[in-house]
Amino acid sequence: MAHVIRPASPEDASLIVELIRGLAAYEKLLDQMEATDDRIRATLFPPAGQTPAAQCVIGEVDGMPGGFALYFFNYSTFLARPGLYLEDLFVKPEYRGQGLGKALLLHLARVARERGCGRMEWAVLDWNTPAIEFYESLGARRLSEWQLCRLRAEDLARLA
Amino acid sequence: MAHVIRPASPEDASLIVELIRGLAAYEKLLDQMEATDDRIRATLFPPAGQTPAAQCVIGEVDGMPGGFALYFFNYSTFLARPGLYLEDLFVKPEYRGQGLGKALLLHLARVARERGCGRMEWAVLDWNTPAIEFYESLGARRLSEWQLCRLRAEDLARLA
Repeated sequence: MAHVIRPASPEDASLIVELIRGLAAYEKLLDQMEATDDRIRATLFPPAGQTPAAQCVIGEVDGMPGGFALYFFNYSTFLARPGLYLEDLFVKPEYRGQGLGKALLLHLARVARERGCGRMEWAVLDWNTPAIEFYESLGARRLSEWQLCRLRAEDLARLA
Repeated sequence: MAHVIRPASPEDASLIVELIRGLAAYEKLLDQMEATDDRIRATLFPPAGQTPAAQCVIGEVDGMPGGFALYFFNYSTFLARPGLYLEDLFVKPEYRGQGLGKALLLHLARVARERGCGRMEWAVLDWNTPAIEFYESLGARRLSEWQLCRLRAEDLARLA
């Protein structure tokens, strides 16, 4: 099987929404899923001169889209260097077990190196044992002492 | 006491490194601290035409710099909208208890609203009870089921 990792294009908006929905279902978070084709196009593929809010690549197996990864560049003050943050990595169930997830992750490791990133980070659900074992097999460490905090849009409206 | 939140400038590089070092000491992470004035200038205040890797604001009390916040914009695929990620928030010990931390956080909530962000996020150390209580008093939720994962520079070099 031939894996190809290619940049996503505006024509992939529906595919990207389908893949995000697949990930949301797997993570039992479909109630948080609000992405639409239009919002994906507006934020990831804005008019010329505007900066995309994130980068997206599609993973293909024998020419068929089997998964995707979405990432952006964050920043470490301790390193005073940018980092790569992997927001989403998802492979459709029918394409699993063929190395596509690993190919996507290794692609991002190369992007991080090329961009001079000091590290690459992402978040995983604590019950997602297959993903945790996969990440640890690649040498990733879990930062178990750090907890994520969130203010939602309604909290921001109240505070701002 | 008059609080002023102002954008950082290249002349603040030494101050920013001092504040990062103060935060690293508080978090017992001084061994991870590699930031220098030069790297801060190169990444936060690049030559015209290049995009800064992150945004930094200085919090002043009666004209004296008492703390800082450093943030960048991330992205939520579930919302298909950008978010604001707060990488660092720190107030010098001698300026605590005067509302400067809250003023910095509320400033960022306004920035997030103005930029159309769907949420604002950050990470806190699980033993940092004063910070956790402060954040929860503002309505923040801890995403306790999510764990951060990291590949360091040497891991990226091995994988890429």
